[in-house]
Amino acid sequence: MTATSETICSVSTAPGIGAIAVIRVSGSKAFPIVEQLFKKKSAFTDTAPHVAKFGEIFDGESLIDQVVFVKFAAPHSYDGEDMVEISCHGSRFIQQKILEMLLQRGCRMAEPGEFTLRAFMNGKMDLPQAEAVGDLIDSQSESAHRLAVNQLKGGFSRKIADLRDRFIQLAALLELELDFSEEEVEFADRKQFIDLLAELRTEVKSLVRSFHTGNALKNGIPVAIAGKPNVGKSTLLNALLNDDRAIVSDIPGTTRDTIEDTLTLGGTLYRFIDTAGIRHSDDTIENSGIQRSFRAMENADIILYMVDAVTATSENLASEIQEIRDKIGVFDKKIILILNKIDKTDSIIELPDELSCKVIGISAKERKNLEAVTEALTQYVAECSVSDDTLLTNARHYDLMVKIADDIVRIEQGLTDGLPTDLVAIDVHSVLDKLGLLTGTITDNDVLNTIFGKFCIGK
Amino acid sequence: MTATSETICSVSTAPGIGAIAVIRVSGSKAFPIVEQLFKKKSAFTDTAPHVAKFGEIFDGESLIDQVVFVKFAAPHSYDGEDMVEISCHGSRFIQQKILEMLLQRGCRMAEPGEFTLRAFMNGKMDLPQAEAVGDLIDSQSESAHRLAVNQLKGGFSRKIADLRDRFIQLAALLELELDFSEEEVEFADRKQFIDLLAELRTEVKSLVRSFHTGNALKNGIPVAIAGKPNVGKSTLLNALLNDDRAIVSDIPGTTRDTIEDTLTLGGTLYRFIDTAGIRHSDDTIENSGIQRSFRAMENADIILYMVDAVTATSENLASEIQEIRDKIGVFDKKIILILNKIDKTDSIIELPDELSCKVIGISAKERKNLEAVTEALTQYVAECSVSDDTLLTNARHYDLMVKIADDIVRIEQGLTDGLPTDLVAIDVHSVLDKLGLLTGTITDNDVLNTIFGKFCIGK
Repeated sequence: MTATSETICSVSTAPGIGAIAVIRVSGSKAFPIVEQLFKKKSAFTDTAPHVAKFGEIFDGESLIDQVVFVKFAAPHSYDGEDMVEISCHGSRFIQQKILEMLLQRGCRMAEPGEFTLRAFMNGKMDLPQAEAVGDLIDSQSESAHRLAVNQLKGGFSRKIADLRDRFIQLAALLELELDFSEEEVEFADRKQFIDLLAELRTEVKSLVRSFHTGNALKNGIPVAIAGKPNVGKSTLLNALLNDDRAIVSDIPGTTRDTIEDTLTLGGTLYRFIDTAGIRHSDDTIENSGIQRSFRAMENADIILYMVDAVTATSENLASEIQEIRDKIGVFDKKIILILNKIDKTDSIIELPDELSCKVIGISAKERKNLEAVTEALTQYVAECSVSDDTLLTNARHYDLMVKIADDIVRIEQGLTDGLPTDLVAIDVHSVLDKLGLLTGTITDNDVLNTIFGKFCIGK
Repeated sequence: MTATSETICSVSTAPGIGAIAVIRVSGSKAFPIVEQLFKKKSAFTDTAPHVAKFGEIFDGESLIDQVVFVKFAAPHSYDGEDMVEISCHGSRFIQQKILEMLLQRGCRMAEPGEFTLRAFMNGKMDLPQAEAVGDLIDSQSESAHRLAVNQLKGGFSRKIADLRDRFIQLAALLELELDFSEEEVEFADRKQFIDLLAELRTEVKSLVRSFHTGNALKNGIPVAIAGKPNVGKSTLLNALLNDDRAIVSDIPGTTRDTIEDTLTLGGTLYRFIDTAGIRHSDDTIENSGIQRSFRAMENADIILYMVDAVTATSENLASEIQEIRDKIGVFDKKIILILNKIDKTDSIIELPDELSCKVIGISAKERKNLEAVTEALTQYVAECSVSDDTLLTNARHYDLMVKIADDIVRIEQGLTDGLPTDLVAIDVHSVLDKLGLLTGTITDNDVLNTIFGKFCIGK
């Protein structure tokens, strides 16, 4: 995938029928090609860039549509090429017809993300910013949106640039030593080098750790609803979802049997995972379902562990929670114990101190005290969230950052082992290369294909 | 529904996620409201109308999106009001957030078609043109598109205006008579009046008749595939559809059990109706299905009547077709006899002359000679089609035109019966009122609600 001067086109608005649709054309021939669509060519040619102008698109003698178009002259366009945006009526027929006419006149269909790829290639944005455009379009919640906007504004890039500056400093210190290497002089201030490296290790590892939160904020925080059969898990799920039906949505492309539904609370997306009721069973199929429940609990950030308040006793509850703990080695802080059906009983349940976790009494059926559950969820997120601009949200960034962390450990080990300076320098340069891949100063066609292939068409 | 100066907003592009989305704001406060979205208000305020400008929308201190906006100052806008179009990134979150911010600052959500209603109210277009905007967006085929474009350009309105001019001429002739009525003088040239009226009756009736074709071209020409069970009806349907899968589509909102699928051939949309195999049966449920098959054949413009060429004989085929004819009183010209499985037999079928209809031999399974079927369909349309600008395509126009035809007949009858001139004049004015309702010079809120309520939001 390369940003050549080929002229590309696509519908950039959502697919389907709307009042209007926007067709984008980009490339060195964008103006002469689009000009041919208009019967009165001068109406197009004589229009200054950045001016919205009415025009009539004709196929031969047939009026296809009355449109409004805007020309953007390179480099003052989204992707840095000559561009035209055509607002037409949003019928499928008109959208297809105009695309057809553009293709016949020398355009080709744009690949997914190709406009943004061009913007990157033309230096309008760096790679994390280009990736943020995709994230921005995909963002389903305020949290995901905020992360994408921050990355788009260059917050993440600045962080990487800062890391890179300091690695360059490290490299410079090593170069200095290498210059004097024939004299077998070890660099005077190796302490400075080691301190700087330790500082960088801390920051890189903190970034690596931030991926869990960043990814959860972006894709939805996994919440497992678990418990014995028939304690009211589905009733709770429905009650939570019905509270705010309007913003309930399915995540497209995810399998229904693991992710049940998503819900936005306080600007954050949660993915609720319904789990099979946990009980001892000899049925192998049921047991495999129960194994999945334990896996879902392991992978969840929060477990809403439900108990029937009417039948539960302090003793059997204690052993139940202990069993969960043993199976999945869970941290207590992520378990929230939900005592359901509190309206049906007066019995008080007490847990031993060492099993203490947050306990909320509700009635899922009567929708009593559900707000305590949603508050506990939002509070959890508030506690986890660090300053947004230090969050890794992207698997590609995470992979590179993990490798950089490994490189740093190897550099430190090399210094301890008294490795020759030139070998240490190789690892430092490897880090610089990885940071270059991150920001896109070093590019790899496969990587670009992967990044932009995930975009929607027309961006 | 009235075009007040309330400021309205909506997403005007197709619903869902796209690279970009366009939000429209219209009304007297459009500029001061949108201005508040931008942190740098001057960037908005100082931008001249019709200039596409980059801007950053902030909610408090949070950047919501980087957008491109265009201002259109009244009356030089689509709807004749002050308007702003904002191109934002097409995430659901951003679209909703910007709408929310607009609502908080004094906009209200636009009703379906409200922008076009305002365009009509502000004299930017007459009612048939406004209706054409809706048809244009809904158009699924070249034929439907051409009809809508012609109506949008005012072709239909000119036709109505021409009719109206001539009715005004009639009214004037009557007025002249009325002025002299006390002198009991019948207007000298009543022949001119009667001739003009006869001419108008012919034209109005021709318009009424054109509705069948116009409606079929707009919504799809109904083609029933009929025949005995297992003659290959579904195979033919699949074969026809697979030939051109890309443009196969379901008509949304139509029940699956009557309309099977649609296909565009030569720019015209066809609705293929699969029918139950016809046979004598004692099963009441099956018989009700067979009754439906006959109804589908009655309502279809074209019947593809399928026969198994291997088992058919001239005799039983003749009686089979005769039975169909008797049941549905069908015109032969709309039956196309499809002899299926011709690759399996050498037998020749001859039909009596009085049952002659177009016969095509095919093999649906081997996809042999299918092009003869599609040619027959397009030829049928070519024969039916009259000049497009005389076609009624709209049920509202049709209803009014039928009533006008009735009025004309009543006027003619009144003249024959020697009705007083002032009574005849009432009917002539009633026609003028109906023509006024057609073009929208006379308006009725309920009618407007019905017309624009069918539009998509944002137009």
